[in-house]
Amino acid sequence: MEFTSETTLNGVVERHFILDDITGVLWSPASGSVESPLLLSGHSGGMHKKAPGLIASALHSVSSHGFTVAAIDAPGHGDRPRSTQDEQWGEAIRQARAAHEPIAPIVVEYNRSLAERAVPEWQATIDALQTLPDVNADAPIGFGGVSLGVVTGLMLAPVESRIAAVSFGGVFVDSSLLEAARKLTVPVEYRIPWDDKDYDRTSGVALFDAFGSKEKTLHAYSGRHYPVPDYERDSSARFFARHLGGSVGVSAS
Amino acid sequence: MEFTSETTLNGVVERHFILDDITGVLWSPASGSVESPLLLSGHSGGMHKKAPGLIASALHSVSSHGFTVAAIDAPGHGDRPRSTQDEQWGEAIRQARAAHEPIAPIVVEYNRSLAERAVPEWQATIDALQTLPDVNADAPIGFGGVSLGVVTGLMLAPVESRIAAVSFGGVFVDSSLLEAARKLTVPVEYRIPWDDKDYDRTSGVALFDAFGSKEKTLHAYSGRHYPVPDYERDSSARFFARHLGGSVGVSAS
Repeated sequence: MEFTSETTLNGVVERHFILDDITGVLWSPASGSVESPLLLSGHSGGMHKKAPGLIASALHSVSSHGFTVAAIDAPGHGDRPRSTQDEQWGEAIRQARAAHEPIAPIVVEYNRSLAERAVPEWQATIDALQTLPDVNADAPIGFGGVSLGVVTGLMLAPVESRIAAVSFGGVFVDSSLLEAARKLTVPVEYRIPWDDKDYDRTSGVALFDAFGSKEKTLHAYSGRHYPVPDYERDSSARFFARHLGGSVGVSAS
Repeated sequence: MEFTSETTLNGVVERHFILDDITGVLWSPASGSVESPLLLSGHSGGMHKKAPGLIASALHSVSSHGFTVAAIDAPGHGDRPRSTQDEQWGEAIRQARAAHEPIAPIVVEYNRSLAERAVPEWQATIDALQTLPDVNADAPIGFGGVSLGVVTGLMLAPVESRIAAVSFGGVFVDSSLLEAARKLTVPVEYRIPWDDKDYDRTSGVALFDAFGSKEKTLHAYSGRHYPVPDYERDSSARFFARHLGGSVGVSAS
């Protein structure tokens, strides 16, 4: 893992890194002395490691609870080259949108391919991050994601015992995702943007119902998937603090 | 309004009061100097102003956010005499339970009658509470309730402009309740205990969907209606603090 940049703003250190083919970013408390628990953040399809909503959540998690947050570009996203097949999927989504045809079937297939490739990349990233002096390698890890990030998290969590809690929001639901959800055992928080026509409410509730986890919470809120209300970002950070540890009492909210 | 007792424990003053026929209780910060916003708390049918879950929420709201919380016995509940008709409803519910027949139709009718009577009682209680030196009479008021408390809150909020936010959980839903929900305009937080067979999930989601409020949040959590998870109590207190003011930063959690 090679760090390629480091900047500090408002008490948060931002470091870009490269690990083999993976491009990523790490946000951590500038205070630096405390070994802080790790949160992984999965962006949505078509976005990248520094999506605006992802950054907002990451900065809040670092500032209010002392987490270290890592995000990596999904294959073919952000700073990473696209394969010919990825280009074809992207083109198929654009054409479907232009023709006002449903994009869900294409997105579901594309997401699954991306998530399958992302799982070993996340595992390699965790391995590398846990060697850092300011990351607590013994602490349980959280995974947060939206859309593609949910699919990735649902594939990653059952095969990666270091992940102890997941916080998700907004995803196209198909039968294979429901099947993956049933295998989830760690505490999960799931968000549905109630007024977002892109995400069918009924299938969102069905996904929540399918989660195999003993502790699960559904949050539906009026509005669309972006922006996520500040109180939901705060709730997500508190959820991780409850399950992973972290400085719950330092919340600035 | 006559106070009949006053005790202080762990920084919270508990005062019982009588107002005409109404028996009630008030919890407020022992520090006393700050004029704190008011929360009203509606208990469930068959319970009373000092139901265990209600007390837990009230003490948390006072301790963590400096609210003053009031609860009154519903007609025929707690320290108040039951009418012959209330006795008949209670007996009908007991008989239905014993015969393993659905109690919802009886509870719905009984709740509506109790709530109709409770609305003017809550308004008289608010009038009296706002004359107290330690209550901020200019601050917007919150109403929290479960079961019967939801029905009462949904009847009270549209006719009582001093109520600016409501937090509800778990109620038998019928068409007249859906109609009342459509008239709600203030921010609302609604909870569904996902594994509670007494409360049908689908009708709970339908109630959330019916709320006319621009800002609304649904929280479903694994488990039954009692006990409410601590993090949900905390979320409810934060919800009120966002909408009513209050000392958000003093949370002990």
